[in-house]
This record gives sequence, structure tokens and C-alpha cells, in this order.
Amino acid sequence: LTGQASPQPLTADQEERIAAQARDLAVGTAQVIPEDGLAEKLRTAEREGRPLRVKLGIDPSGSDLTLGHAVVLRKLRQFQDAGHTAVLIVGDFTGQIGDPTGRTKTRSVLTPEQTRRNARTYMDQALKILREDRLELLYNSEWLAGKSLADVLATSRALTVAQLLERDDFARRHRENLPITLMEFMYPMLQGMDSVAITADCELGGTDQTFNNLVGRTLQKDAGRDPQIVITLPLLRGTDGAEKMGKSLGNWISLNDTPDDKYGKIMSIGDDLMPHYAELCCAWTADQLDEFCAILARHPMDAKRAIGRRIVELYHGPDEAKAAQERFTSRFSRRELPEDLPEFPLPTGSGTADIIEILVAAGLVTSKGEARRLLASGGIRLDGDKVSPESGPFASEDLAGKVLQRGKLHAVRLVAKE
Amino acid sequence: LTGQASPQPLTADQEERIAAQARDLAVGTAQVIPEDGLAEKLRTAEREGRPLRVKLGIDPSGSDLTLGHAVVLRKLRQFQDAGHTAVLIVGDFTGQIGDPTGRTKTRSVLTPEQTRRNARTYMDQALKILREDRLELLYNSEWLAGKSLADVLATSRALTVAQLLERDDFARRHRENLPITLMEFMYPMLQGMDSVAITADCELGGTDQTFNNLVGRTLQKDAGRDPQIVITLPLLRGTDGAEKMGKSLGNWISLNDTPDDKYGKIMSIGDDLMPHYAELCCAWTADQLDEFCAILARHPMDAKRAIGRRIVELYHGPDEAKAAQERFTSRFSRRELPEDLPEFPLPTGSGTADIIEILVAAGLVTSKGEARRLLASGGIRLDGDKVSPESGPFASEDLAGKVLQRGKLHAVRLVAKE
Repeated sequence: LTGQASPQPLTADQEERIAAQARDLAVGTAQVIPEDGLAEKLRTAEREGRPLRVKLGIDPSGSDLTLGHAVVLRKLRQFQDAGHTAVLIVGDFTGQIGDPTGRTKTRSVLTPEQTRRNARTYMDQALKILREDRLELLYNSEWLAGKSLADVLATSRALTVAQLLERDDFARRHRENLPITLMEFMYPMLQGMDSVAITADCELGGTDQTFNNLVGRTLQKDAGRDPQIVITLPLLRGTDGAEKMGKSLGNWISLNDTPDDKYGKIMSIGDDLMPHYAELCCAWTADQLDEFCAILARHPMDAKRAIGRRIVELYHGPDEAKAAQERFTSRFSRRELPEDLPEFPLPTGSGTADIIEILVAAGLVTSKGEARRLLASGGIRLDGDKVSPESGPFASEDLAGKVLQRGKLHAVRLVAKE
Repeated sequence: LTGQASPQPLTADQEERIAAQARDLAVGTAQVIPEDGLAEKLRTAEREGRPLRVKLGIDPSGSDLTLGHAVVLRKLRQFQDAGHTAVLIVGDFTGQIGDPTGRTKTRSVLTPEQTRRNARTYMDQALKILREDRLELLYNSEWLAGKSLADVLATSRALTVAQLLERDDFARRHRENLPITLMEFMYPMLQGMDSVAITADCELGGTDQTFNNLVGRTLQKDAGRDPQIVITLPLLRGTDGAEKMGKSLGNWISLNDTPDDKYGKIMSIGDDLMPHYAELCCAWTADQLDEFCAILARHPMDAKRAIGRRIVELYHGPDEAKAAQERFTSRFSRRELPEDLPEFPLPTGSGTADIIEILVAAGLVTSKGEARRLLASGGIRLDGDKVSPESGPFASEDLAGKVLQRGKLHAVRLVAKE
């Protein structure tokens, strides 16, 4: 246990290196708990001649990772580059129990096969940021499936109901008389048990994970272990300026987005968001950030282009970044549409065409509702002219050859079906 | 499942018998939940040609049972006499986990051997009331020890935090900011799991157990079973008139008390308590209770004697009851002390004797504090004269031969040590 035996003193050289590393690793974080914990952990690792084990819980739902996820992953990569081990935890155990809100016990949200496939999907994306060495991928069913009721009770003694009710969403739901099942109430404990099982030295997460990650600290202490430190990263705001980039909000940039989509979405953010994205998404050094700020002060549009190009560069390389920027400039800055628009064959039959159905079928919108909203807000153009909800019906022959466009980014050329 | 298939109709004869049994079994209860559940359960048992399984959780601490415990046990006996099965559950599982309030995981409050010994102690006493046939004694470690974390999570989905916080003591502690560990918070669920495991049809308990016993109902429903009904019995008030007879309060009558102690303690209760004891402790029929009330209205002292004699009779037989009554009358009603007082040899040595130490050593009080309080309140007499806290020190030779008396019930004759 750190601090129980009188520890071997480190050399001035070692101390200096550790202080520098602690400083670098703390850059861009929201909080390090406890404040001096990072340097202390690094000292322990140095003394014991081993890397730190840095835990990150990952979501096995199999969906796209966003630039929001990337914020934490980049910090984890920084730990890897400093010689430490990234330990990714797939929370497959609770997924196998079933839906916490459902009533059917036998229903499994995810089969083990689905979970493993989803974890591979996650890793495919995460490896755009993480390195493959100094990396462990673990499934928490490995240790949780073997836990007994007795283990659970022994562990649950270290937590109090009042503590758990302090977690933001529990507090809110309790206040609003919305049900919290005892099952959900135990989830933070399960995450904490993960930290004990993998002997985590440090746990990373967004600021919305602070509570859960501190439970790991509590349970490690209770088990007589040196408790992990908790490092939180700021939540990335959405492209619309909302509090958090979220898939349900439609304000996200996926790591899987094409270079053009990434670049285009960045060009759509408000100017006030630029420093936030520059700091959290660009992996720039302090000097590079200073340089960026200088540009921002004089030429905001150049600054936004710099962010867009940098982000595409990080995920697709400098050539793709340059090309995406040129295509964007050509298509939108000069208000010209490219020659090679995708073609959409018009339905044959009655001779008239429903513009809403075409928008959906062509993939320009995801639903009829969205189509109606965009028509109402003037977001749909036909050969450059706004289409109103009252326009149409259109004769198919009138539409053929025209460009149907949604906003600045998406367009198809309508063609007659052969 | 009851009610799903169209049930076989019962004959008018059967229905009549069931209605009468339901009425008898409901006598003296505080609540039957749901109100019409008892008759419905009896119908199910009749249709399926089986006895009801009536659950009672018992305390494996190994201590004396009181007339308070007897209230529930008598109701259970009534179920046995009606042909049903009493299922006593020893909660040994949590006892083996350890002290919920302690910090040491490895500490076991009770070893399995201690638990089994204590359960035997319990049974020795309970069999003064219960019959030995139609009786099962089960240890909940039998099914709980095999439960996994997955089982716990699946079950805990049926309960909400808000529900659990409604339990009286949880609500109070939460309101007063006193810690409730997550472990304790899970205990009601464990008791409910017992009901599922033993397929209880009915659970008995004091009104202070209503919440816990309803959890069993919830979990059985969630498991797709016919849920148990919950029958609560009023809490017996202490001999001092306090809300509940409790061992820590010194206001209890133990099933192990001698006939004289039982009789004497009953004679010490306030007149207002008499109907309460008559109803809950005397196993009287409605007619007998009416008769008692008639006596109470005219001759309260006779009524009290009737309760005392009846209670001694229930546990020791009519001869002992008669004898205890006669001894009491002789000793106290006529203010005479019997000839055969126990002797207490005075300590030799300094020549003076400390009255407080003698009271403790002679077993007339349980602590020096109690001795001091009794001296101050005039509850200690020496040969009939009150001893004040200022009296003494006494010379041993002055004390020899005198009667040292605590209240009306307890006295020793002090003798010189040989």
C-alpha cells in the first residue's frame, strides 16, 4: 500500500520527469481527483517499474463514435504514448441481464456474440486514435458473472443510499418522482467492481461520469487497495452549440463521417464554438493553440477552415484534408455544385411525383417529418429555387434533370427512370 | 396461475367451510393484504388439495422469546390447527456475511454452528406454542448462497428506490441524514427472495414487518407466481405500556420466565393495558373475551388475575397457574415475604459492605446504574425500610439476617459467609 511502508525516494531526475509528465497529462482535463494524485501514481509506477493501468469503460451498443468520444480517447492515447497501459472495459455483463426498464426477465438486450461484434466495431473506430500496443480490451462479464450474492452484499456495505442519490440523474429522477429501479441503483457499484477487478490506477471519463468513477475509488479503498485516481474530460458540445454532442440530437460528427462531411459540419459551427473545438478536437500543442487564437482574432473564417482541415487530417491524413477543403470551397464558397452529383431515378407511373417521398427515397432526409420541416423552413431547393410545402404536385417530366438540394451539403440530380 | 385458467367451482359446502376458516384466521389480525386474499388462497388450496404454506421469518440471535413473539406464533399455530403448514425461515445467510455496520469484511457475526444452535433455542421455545407436525424449519442460506450477481440484478429490477425509501426506518434515517448502506437497502429484497424460494402462500409478521413482507409479494408477482398474502399482527405493548415489548427496554415477559415471574409481571401492568393483553396473549375465544370484559368492568383486579393465571396456564398448565397465583397472593397481596427466600452470603473482609455491590452480586439489579436509580426512587428496602442513596456504608454484621428487597417481586436474605 502506498504510504504504508516508507517509500524508496526517487532521484531528482526521476522527480523532474514525473512532474513534467503529470503536467502534460493534466492538460485539457476538467478535473484530476485527488488533485495531486496523478504525480503520486506516476511515482508509484516509477518505483514499481511498471506502467499505470488506465481504465476506460466503453459502450457496447455498436454505434458510431463521435468527436465527443474522441476527447477521452485522445487523452487515453496520451497515456499510452507516455508508456502506460490503456484498459478498455466492455460492460457486457449488464447487457446480458436485460433491459433495466423492461418487464421481461428473459429478454436479453445483447447476446454475447452481438456484444463481441459491437466491441469490434468500437475498436475499429477507436484505433483511429489509440495505438494497438499498450492496450487491453476486457469484458466485465469475465469477473462479474462469477460474483455471488454474498460478494455483492459484502461490497455494497461500502456505499450508502444517500451517496448514490447524489448522482446527478438519480437525484433528478428522485426529485421528480420518476422511478429508479434497485437494479439501476446498483450499476455504479458494478462499475466500481470493475476497477477493483482490473486493479485500475486511473479511470478516465467525461465529467458526466465523475460520480460512477469515484465509486471505483471507494470500493478499491474498501478492499484495502490503493484507490484509483479519477480524471475527467470536458464534454464536447454539439455542432449546434448544445451542451453535449449526442447521437440522438443530430448534432454530432462521427469518426466514420467522410472527410467532406467532417469538414462541412465543422464549417457549420458557430464562431463561439471554435475555441472549444480547437482545444478538445485538434490535438494541438499549447504553441499551436496560441497560433490558432491569433488567427481567430483576425480572420475567423480562416480559423474555422484550420479546425476543419486539422480534424480531417487527424483521421484521414493531410492529402484528404487538403482535398476536402478544396471541394468544400468549390461547392459552397463559390456556390457551385459539382459535376458528379449522384443521380436519383424518378419513380414511373402516375406521371406526378411527391417531393416528400423523393426526398426520403433519395436519402436527403431521414423521415417525412424531417422533409416537411425542411420544406417549411426553406431548406429544400430545386435547381436553386426554394421549394415550399405548397409547391407541387410535380409532373415527373418537369423534375427530370433538375438538382434537388437539401441545405448546402446534400444534393442529387433527378433523372427519368429508364 | 390462479385466475388465468377458469377455476373449478367449489361446492356450497366447501365455500361455507372456507368462509368460516377465513373469518377465524382473520380474528385479531391488524391487516390482511389484500383484504379478500385469505379466502382466495384457501380456495386455491382447496382446489389443489394441499395445505397453505405460511411463512414466518425468525431471528437467529438466540435470545429469549417474549409474549410479543407469541402473538404471531399463536396465529401461526391457528393456521397449523386448520391444516396448513408453518414454514419458519432462519435468516442465516446475512448473518454469515457480517456486520452491516462494521468495516471488517471477514468478520462473521454468526458461524453456521452458532446459527444452528440459536435456531434450536428458538424452536425449543416456539414449540411451547407451535405443533411439531405441519412444520418446516428452513435456512435461507440454502437458496441465497447459490444466488449470483445476475440473479440479484434480475430480481432488483422489480423494486424501486422510492419504494424502499418508504420503509419506516429507511425513511426516518434518510430524513435525518443517517447513513443507510446499500447492503441494508437490499435486505428487504433478500426476504422477498425467500418467499419466492419457498413458494409462500402467506407471510405473517408484526405490523412493523408489513413493508418487508410486501416485497415478497412484489417479487413473486414479478416471477410470474401467484403472490403471497400478507397478514400482520398488532405489536404487543410492553408491561410498562410502551409501544412495543422489547428486550432492550426491560418491559418484557419471556416464554422462559418462571410461572411466578410471568404472573407477577402481569400483575404489574397498568389497568389500561388489560384489554390489549387479554386479546393478544390469552388465546381466548370471542365468548371468553366477552366474559373477561364483563369481569373487567366490575372487578379490575380480578380481571388482571384472570389474565395472569391464563398466561401461566398456557405455558405451564393449570396447576402451575393456580400455584403461582396463590404464591403471589401470599407474598404480595398480603405483604408477607415467603419463608424460603434465597440466601445471599455477605462478602467477608473489610467489615463494611457496599449495598450497590450486593444488589448487583445478588442479581437483584443488572447494573450499578440500575441500583443507584432504584435507591434514589425508593425501590430498595432492607427489612421493609427504604434504603436511600445516602444510607451506609453498612457493617457486614448489621446486614446479616436481614431481607434485601427490590420492588415487590425480588428479595434475598443476607447471611454471613461461613
